[in-house]
Amino acid sequence: MQHNVSIRDTVAAIATPPGSGGVGIVRLSGPQSRAVGHRLFRSSRPTFEDFRPYMLHHGWALDERGEPLDECLAVFMPGPGSYTAEDVVEFQCHGGPAVVRAVLAAVLACGVRAAGPGEFTYRAFINGRLDLTQAEAVAEMIAAPTRAGMTLAQTRLSGALGERIAELRSRLEHLRAQLCVAVDFPEDEVECLAPDEFSVGVREVADAVRALIANFERGRCWREGALTVLAGQVNAGKSSLMNALLGRERAIVTDIPGTTRDYLEEAVNLDGLPVRLVDTAGIRETEDAVERAGLERSRDMAERADLVLLVVDRTRPVAAEDIGLAQRLGPQRVLAVLNKSDLAEGHAHEEGDATGAGWFVRAGFETVRVSARTGAGLDRLCDRIRERVVGSGGEPDAGEVVPNLRQSQALSQALDELCALDADIAAGIPYDLLGVRLEAACTILGEITGEIAPADVLNSIFSTFCIGK
Amino acid sequence: MQHNVSIRDTVAAIATPPGSGGVGIVRLSGPQSRAVGHRLFRSSRPTFEDFRPYMLHHGWALDERGEPLDECLAVFMPGPGSYTAEDVVEFQCHGGPAVVRAVLAAVLACGVRAAGPGEFTYRAFINGRLDLTQAEAVAEMIAAPTRAGMTLAQTRLSGALGERIAELRSRLEHLRAQLCVAVDFPEDEVECLAPDEFSVGVREVADAVRALIANFERGRCWREGALTVLAGQVNAGKSSLMNALLGRERAIVTDIPGTTRDYLEEAVNLDGLPVRLVDTAGIRETEDAVERAGLERSRDMAERADLVLLVVDRTRPVAAEDIGLAQRLGPQRVLAVLNKSDLAEGHAHEEGDATGAGWFVRAGFETVRVSARTGAGLDRLCDRIRERVVGSGGEPDAGEVVPNLRQSQALSQALDELCALDADIAAGIPYDLLGVRLEAACTILGEITGEIAPADVLNSIFSTFCIGK
Repeated sequence: MQHNVSIRDTVAAIATPPGSGGVGIVRLSGPQSRAVGHRLFRSSRPTFEDFRPYMLHHGWALDERGEPLDECLAVFMPGPGSYTAEDVVEFQCHGGPAVVRAVLAAVLACGVRAAGPGEFTYRAFINGRLDLTQAEAVAEMIAAPTRAGMTLAQTRLSGALGERIAELRSRLEHLRAQLCVAVDFPEDEVECLAPDEFSVGVREVADAVRALIANFERGRCWREGALTVLAGQVNAGKSSLMNALLGRERAIVTDIPGTTRDYLEEAVNLDGLPVRLVDTAGIRETEDAVERAGLERSRDMAERADLVLLVVDRTRPVAAEDIGLAQRLGPQRVLAVLNKSDLAEGHAHEEGDATGAGWFVRAGFETVRVSARTGAGLDRLCDRIRERVVGSGGEPDAGEVVPNLRQSQALSQALDELCALDADIAAGIPYDLLGVRLEAACTILGEITGEIAPADVLNSIFSTFCIGK
Repeated sequence: MQHNVSIRDTVAAIATPPGSGGVGIVRLSGPQSRAVGHRLFRSSRPTFEDFRPYMLHHGWALDERGEPLDECLAVFMPGPGSYTAEDVVEFQCHGGPAVVRAVLAAVLACGVRAAGPGEFTYRAFINGRLDLTQAEAVAEMIAAPTRAGMTLAQTRLSGALGERIAELRSRLEHLRAQLCVAVDFPEDEVECLAPDEFSVGVREVADAVRALIANFERGRCWREGALTVLAGQVNAGKSSLMNALLGRERAIVTDIPGTTRDYLEEAVNLDGLPVRLVDTAGIRETEDAVERAGLERSRDMAERADLVLLVVDRTRPVAAEDIGLAQRLGPQRVLAVLNKSDLAEGHAHEEGDATGAGWFVRAGFETVRVSARTGAGLDRLCDRIRERVVGSGGEPDAGEVVPNLRQSQALSQALDELCALDADIAAGIPYDLLGVRLEAACTILGEITGEIAPADVLNSIFSTFCIGK
């Protein structure tokens, strides 16, 4: 969608998920919605004259020649009291693909334009009904893999982050106004902010920004899923462990968005925490040049992981390669999974053995004994994965304000400006030179809520939406 | 679903298709709907006290502890003016899988039961809002692959078939009443129907039933898709032809319901006619025992086809096997596709050649020359497939009353009774013995509309529905 297109026209799309179901919705938004709705709807009440706002009317959706297409409920929601803040009409039909396609085709035949991805929400934003943090929360709400991800999105959907940012921005604007007074009327007896008071004000905002950024890291795994990579030797049992974990936990149905993968990725739900389990095994078993590339990707994946499950066969000595990987990543990022524990009792390579799994214990790595074959130890492994990734606390609270990646990156930029500003104040830089950094920080905060919104920012946000939202 | 379960309880399900979209709906039906709806909804208006019937209320869907789950629209539709004719509440939320699952979970936590497949429509039927032909039309509407299939379902959804059947049944009931009079008061001077008048009455109904059955055949291909099988020798170019047809025509997105297939089936839309293209090629290229089984299945598929496209290589002599197949099926069911026509100009095996494609013409088979490689002749082939399957008429009209398979089978049974009855009348069987057949025909017609509905009939109908309808 080009975000410089007119929003004076009327657009329509299928608003329900694709596929078959009980109900399918075709939504129109824009100035022609009501007229087109009238033309394509025949009420089952002979006395029907006009839509009553927000009222579901029973009748038939017609095609552009007046032929009935489907029994439906139709509703008119006048702007600004609608999702887009424009006049909206919905046909709630039977949820068959041919049905909603036919109704949409009839609407388009009346001169309505097909909506682009996210265009309804874009209009809600442009019309001021949602700020940008709320608009983004809509997409995250839809994409949330579990309840925890929903909760994070829902708090922002309610406007909590937007309000927090607006408050911080207004504190910066207030400091800026005091700066201007000092700069514009230097000779006057105007009460001027002392450098240390000014510095305190900047630091308070910086601390609040820092706290929001910290929430991002904490919320990320709940929202996107914790990237958990299975590493280890070919015969250590990575695939069996993966299958055992998948079999034990209800797999999340939604597919993880992404491009082509040359590794196996599955999503599981560990007591509410979405976990992306990646088995890089396949890569290493391939040949020569391809294998080298594969090994690099495998290593790269381990570097990016929230947690690496280093799977070792307890019945065999630990491979030098595994020790190297563990040392490179460190105990913080690695959980050593001692597999085939059902076979290892009384075996030579016990924890006490210098070449055995005991190496991990001595080197300060957490270990968990499992048997992918019998299922022993899997419950404990799941508990440990969950705690290592998100700590012992429960799911995020409804009130917790957690920014997403874009918002967090902008907050980091704003924080950089504020820290530099604080240094400038300490260095005694004159007030009339400080305004630039203060203004930059305000602008960045404004981009988060969308009060200041460059077209490329909007494009990158709304292009991730599905059509019909 | 067991159809002897109580319909006094309250049920709920996700009513929109699975997956992600703008809007997802959780629907409740039954006596507790309104109370549960109240408990799980917080209006955005502080003055909100109660749902106004059919009015979309903006607010938040809550979980059972009162925590907000998602911004939503909630609506209460009091029975009998609702889909099920019971009290219905809908939460129209963001269309994310986690969102609708969470809202449904909250509803179920309030003691509402999860609805079985088709349970909302079942309730609409049991409560008398839909007759059985309309209930079936709902499922067909959702499953319709194209607009034409929709039109057929929509006419029945409007009740047209139910009305026609009810009218025929009442004519039979009227005849039956006249029979009873004749039997109960044989000595009276009551005006009694003469055998030939009686016979005329029965035949009129039989003719009307016959006409409906004829419509079934005509409507079947529009509704389910025409089964079109590609047959012919391994190198005749069946797969290339299939790909050329798929490339030319917009493939229908919906998957055709079915079990595991050991043949390749694809659906195309020939100018509104859904066509199931089956390539049995893969089977014949497999080995020995498997191949024999494959050949049988292939032959079986050809026997069941609406049309067999017998693909022959115009540059080679016609195979004895192809001639055998054509002779077995006859010119009615076979369209000979002379492929590789771009290579065949001036070739020895021309139509005039005894061993060439000319055999088909002389034997009375329709032939179409194509080149799967260049695309030549494909337009004409598509036109011919369409006309061979559904004739030269256009799509079914909105007013056309077309029964489905179950209804058509019941109509055939009723017709058998009526024909036998007519024969009995002609044979001078006494009136008091004729009532049985007349009653049987009435019962069968009653089963079509559901006035008489054995549990197994209902089970087999509603078990094909999706959950949430």
